[in-house]
Amino acid sequence: MPQIDFWYSIGSTYTYLTVMRLPALADKTGITVNWRPFSVRAIMIEQNNIPFSGKPARTAHMWRDIERRAPRYGLSPKIPASYPLEEFDLANKVAILGQQEGWVQDYTIATYERWFEQGAPAGSEPNLSASLRAIGQDPDRVLAAVESTDCESAYLKATEDARQLGIFGAPSFTVGTELFWGDDRLEDAIDWAKSQKTTTS
Amino acid sequence: MPQIDFWYSIGSTYTYLTVMRLPALADKTGITVNWRPFSVRAIMIEQNNIPFSGKPARTAHMWRDIERRAPRYGLSPKIPASYPLEEFDLANKVAILGQQEGWVQDYTIATYERWFEQGAPAGSEPNLSASLRAIGQDPDRVLAAVESTDCESAYLKATEDARQLGIFGAPSFTVGTELFWGDDRLEDAIDWAKSQKTTTS
Repeated sequence: MPQIDFWYSIGSTYTYLTVMRLPALADKTGITVNWRPFSVRAIMIEQNNIPFSGKPARTAHMWRDIERRAPRYGLSPKIPASYPLEEFDLANKVAILGQQEGWVQDYTIATYERWFEQGAPAGSEPNLSASLRAIGQDPDRVLAAVESTDCESAYLKATEDARQLGIFGAPSFTVGTELFWGDDRLEDAIDWAKSQKTTTS
Repeated sequence: MPQIDFWYSIGSTYTYLTVMRLPALADKTGITVNWRPFSVRAIMIEQNNIPFSGKPARTAHMWRDIERRAPRYGLSPKIPASYPLEEFDLANKVAILGQQEGWVQDYTIATYERWFEQGAPAGSEPNLSASLRAIGQDPDRVLAAVESTDCESAYLKATEDARQLGIFGAPSFTVGTELFWGDDRLEDAIDWAKSQKTTTS
């Protein structure tokens, strides 16, 4: 089955659009998606890639663009959402644990929904515990596991994997070494995956 | 008739895709397009918006992305094109004169074609004279007119108009005060223009 890797950080604004529409799109197109949380913030700082801070015109367009595009995906975000996230790394380390334990997709959707549609920033309370409870995970257990397990090293490893693929922003999509950046390239990535003659799963 | 303003600088890479596909798309959709050259470079410098210089990962993706998208528009660019342009301002001041005299669209297409498809940078020779001759303009007359007329002030005025609209990159499209950034938002801008109940022409 064709597959794509979906590289993202909870904290990226355009990733909201991708997260909320990807499961249905994957079903419709028959694509397997590997959800790959990483720290886009670490990479963007390294690369001096600062899209919004201190750039009011670009920031205003970003929010307006998301607001205009959301309805076509059946979404009704409250724009602008709280940005940037205070607990960026915690939000993403929980996702890393979710990837290890099999609930990364459900958690990511739950926390983005609360962030963009209910006004509660991801990674902070009440979003964090509410999102975990909503997907059947115990917040106390998860937060302890995030601190006590190898989440930190797995997070660094995921970020290094992204760096090696040439990823510089989020959301990004890879099919082998072919890189696509931006929610608006999701369909391109899916088309690319489906056009590959040989895929292994 | 619905209309959009197309804001661009000769020197922007993604603008190649827009320039080459816009006339046919405008015909097909019944949209009037006002071609508005300005200095995106001046605005980006002011805003510390540096997308590619010193950013190899992002630059590599930009070229690959253009290369992947070009065939769907029937285009065959030689990637990467020479970048950045040495004669950015001259290329765009000629466009300003073309706007005043009615040949801006033809000149912009001619010079992008030579830049992206024949390897000759826009604004420099042999591209500049060849592009002008190809559209029936005398290079000597044009270059003298660019120096002797109010092209410089018109160029500054166009850039200020763009700034006032919140434009921060190119290509951009405006419908009234509604701003769309990027070649991949051209269809959104056209849809927006067609959805407006009242248009004046």
